[in-house]
Amino acid sequence: MAAAWNAIEERPTQTLEQLFAADQERVGKLSQRLEWTDTALGENAKQGILFDWSKTHLDDDLLDEFEELAKAADFTGLRASLLGGRRVNVTEDRPAEHTAQRGIGDEASVEEASALHERMKLLVEAIHGGALGEVRHCIHIGIGGSALGPAMALDALTRDLELVDVHVVSNIDGLALEQAFAACDPATTIIAVASKTFTTTETMTNAESALRWLGENGVDDPGGRVVALTASPDKAVEWGVDETRILPFAESVGGRYSLWSSIGFPVALAVGWDDFAAMLAGAKAMDEHFRDTDGRANLPLRAAFADRYYARIRKCQTRAVFAYDERLSLLPDYLQQLEMESNGKRVTIIRDEVDEPTAAITWGGVGTGAQHAVFQLLHQGTHLVPVDFIASIAPGDELDPAHHSILLMNCFAQGAALMKGGNMSASGDDPARAFPGDRPSATILCDDLDASTLGALIAFHEHRTFANAVLMGINPFDQFGVELGKKMAKEIESGGSDFDPSTTALLEAAGLG
Amino acid sequence: MAAAWNAIEERPTQTLEQLFAADQERVGKLSQRLEWTDTALGENAKQGILFDWSKTHLDDDLLDEFEELAKAADFTGLRASLLGGRRVNVTEDRPAEHTAQRGIGDEASVEEASALHERMKLLVEAIHGGALGEVRHCIHIGIGGSALGPAMALDALTRDLELVDVHVVSNIDGLALEQAFAACDPATTIIAVASKTFTTTETMTNAESALRWLGENGVDDPGGRVVALTASPDKAVEWGVDETRILPFAESVGGRYSLWSSIGFPVALAVGWDDFAAMLAGAKAMDEHFRDTDGRANLPLRAAFADRYYARIRKCQTRAVFAYDERLSLLPDYLQQLEMESNGKRVTIIRDEVDEPTAAITWGGVGTGAQHAVFQLLHQGTHLVPVDFIASIAPGDELDPAHHSILLMNCFAQGAALMKGGNMSASGDDPARAFPGDRPSATILCDDLDASTLGALIAFHEHRTFANAVLMGINPFDQFGVELGKKMAKEIESGGSDFDPSTTALLEAAGLG
Repeated sequence: MAAAWNAIEERPTQTLEQLFAADQERVGKLSQRLEWTDTALGENAKQGILFDWSKTHLDDDLLDEFEELAKAADFTGLRASLLGGRRVNVTEDRPAEHTAQRGIGDEASVEEASALHERMKLLVEAIHGGALGEVRHCIHIGIGGSALGPAMALDALTRDLELVDVHVVSNIDGLALEQAFAACDPATTIIAVASKTFTTTETMTNAESALRWLGENGVDDPGGRVVALTASPDKAVEWGVDETRILPFAESVGGRYSLWSSIGFPVALAVGWDDFAAMLAGAKAMDEHFRDTDGRANLPLRAAFADRYYARIRKCQTRAVFAYDERLSLLPDYLQQLEMESNGKRVTIIRDEVDEPTAAITWGGVGTGAQHAVFQLLHQGTHLVPVDFIASIAPGDELDPAHHSILLMNCFAQGAALMKGGNMSASGDDPARAFPGDRPSATILCDDLDASTLGALIAFHEHRTFANAVLMGINPFDQFGVELGKKMAKEIESGGSDFDPSTTALLEAAGLG
Repeated sequence: MAAAWNAIEERPTQTLEQLFAADQERVGKLSQRLEWTDTALGENAKQGILFDWSKTHLDDDLLDEFEELAKAADFTGLRASLLGGRRVNVTEDRPAEHTAQRGIGDEASVEEASALHERMKLLVEAIHGGALGEVRHCIHIGIGGSALGPAMALDALTRDLELVDVHVVSNIDGLALEQAFAACDPATTIIAVASKTFTTTETMTNAESALRWLGENGVDDPGGRVVALTASPDKAVEWGVDETRILPFAESVGGRYSLWSSIGFPVALAVGWDDFAAMLAGAKAMDEHFRDTDGRANLPLRAAFADRYYARIRKCQTRAVFAYDERLSLLPDYLQQLEMESNGKRVTIIRDEVDEPTAAITWGGVGTGAQHAVFQLLHQGTHLVPVDFIASIAPGDELDPAHHSILLMNCFAQGAALMKGGNMSASGDDPARAFPGDRPSATILCDDLDASTLGALIAFHEHRTFANAVLMGINPFDQFGVELGKKMAKEIESGGSDFDPSTTALLEAAGLG
């Protein structure tokens, strides 16, 4: 891959303005729409997303070189391995089969996922039908991947209607659970316990406190109100959950890719099975595009080309995502986990130390609020930050249409302003009012933000993350980086004393020494 | 300042482990407690915060050099200018008088702030007393500084009790307002409109829609339910607000420093005046420390030394903040605005282009959730990220004490693990399971997270931001970087056509072309 990088590094740097001037076809080449059939809307209903990467510094020459890089990194082979259910997670010696949840992958895994979905659907519909008595609330307890996916999807899809009111609790801080308790009526509340291993400290502690709360508030059989979402059904049985309320998922589904599995139970419970299925179908449409498209026309791969360009050539330590839609308020957090936990690594698949920056720090927020908070730095700071804007053409609200059109105009105006620059002083030359411009952004414009679109959006980012990993030669599917902190917390808990002087002093100050 | 930087740059780099080994007094030197009287708790009640900077790379020699840098930057003189109400905001030719809101500053400004607080207190207490009829809900409409401060303080202080249920709406996206509508009973709802200029597009559009909603839902005189929080009372009168319900604040209070002024009205409404006053008092305690302490013992200045060290010497483009307390969930967002909008600049006070990186990108999240989401990159990624941990010794919840002790143990364990490093493989030498360690963090440990502590915490960060600006020679009090995007949004709105091809295509795709 060194040869391809040498070629990329040697390309002269052009400004965005120069790139647009040099190529009249630029928008057509770098802006591309993906369309698919939206099962929730009907047999022939189309849904689509426009991916505009023309305001990045990619051009024909760079794309040629990046395609060479992808070839050198065996992108096609590794993609086939991923989608074929081969053991791409080399350190843990297992496949990464989130796409099988959507129907793309190893045949046996797809069948297993489908059977588990059927079981999940039955339980969801049984609960809607009253099998657990009246269920108006669900407290979903999980952390990391077992929480962020459901929380994000619920926030995106339940604005109009929710069949069951779900509260996602992840923090061990009791305040998180107390806030959920305050919003729920114990008599009509079920508890979803989501943990891949069913041993996560935070989740099991929270689950026990939630059962205690049910018991103390007049629920006769708190254990009978629990649904377990786990890849370790035996552990759930041991913990006391009845098998009929255990929804397993495959070990090969990683935590941060688990929304598609039974971890998505609270989403299906709140939005109904058809919308959950539509979310899977939207993701599948993106999987098919990713599987069947080569080179620069492959949307997630093209995005990864830009990501690597900014990370390695322009030394950008971060990448920002701004959702111009309240429903995507949690998407920046979700992507932060997806990208940073997957690619925040320091060794390659063959365990050499990397010789380049790995994952950028993903951060962001919600427009238009963020414009009044952090865009100052984007426009006039010294750090270059490649930005993604995400918006929906169809409004989600029913207020005066001015709200939505001002929202979209602001979104587009920011991308335009970052690129164009200028001087806002009357004289035109006050350096304090100068905008250097030439700052890149990409825009992801959805026709409408329904369940299938959300599915496609998330799958796009999953594949983009994978493509980044391939270009770096790293394994995006393990997460050993969280282990040391866990181990030291356990050492503190068990009264260990071999800590640095600062930690010792903090423990003493907090009465834990 | 170049001489001081040269000296700093020439210091040999030592690991944190070496620094601890070299100086047995390190914790005592770099960990320091601030204590003050907490007016809400009683005359002699003490409240305190421990600031532990010992796990950063600062040492005696570096601190000596940074003190020289502060001297060269005239920190003492500029601090006196700030706190004396002189025109430190040179580009806008006005002072920055947020501390006057807390009782520290130019005498006339302090008196004015106090009189305006008195007026605000009267209105808050009149509303509590029923002057506007039954008031159970308040929709607070504002954006940027007019929203983030109230939202953060409300989230922190209303877990136990809220006298009025407040919903903060900032986004122009109608979904934001609709969500507030769904949670409020129009008959018992008042609308707080917060805008320094009373012309902000988002805020005025949202305010109009909120009044329409009241009118359409049986409220006879929607205009009579509005409270205006503004530095432009004339504009509020023009817009139709009765003078008795206008709470002005001084033009010299910047948006991102405005929580202390009448922008804090919804906080006082929800928590009661005494707690709002305690928040001001906590901030004042920090102001006094900042004013009266010199050199490394000045907590915000010392934090700024570390900030500049990592930004300039270690090339860190970011800084992360993790709140190990649900009540501080919005603090990372608040600090993001405070730091990035203040110091995300590219020219100095005398309008030279800066020759160093300015504000880092502030990002973060809430522990323990973040541990399972983004800490992978902190421990094993290639980017060095200085981290702040913030926690409270006293729990905010009433569940099993295990919740809070696990929370704190995790917080301390993360700081210890980042510094110590190690290898988590059985063999002890698997590079994929290796943690390089030597990654810095600071810990801010509060006795208890009450209103006065929150005030002190925020004031600490305000002064830290100012100290950073002084060390860079920039003006942290303007924000011209938001102007170009606003102008281009207006051009789009008025049907302009002089846009780049990408923006033109996006407008067309969205039906706005």
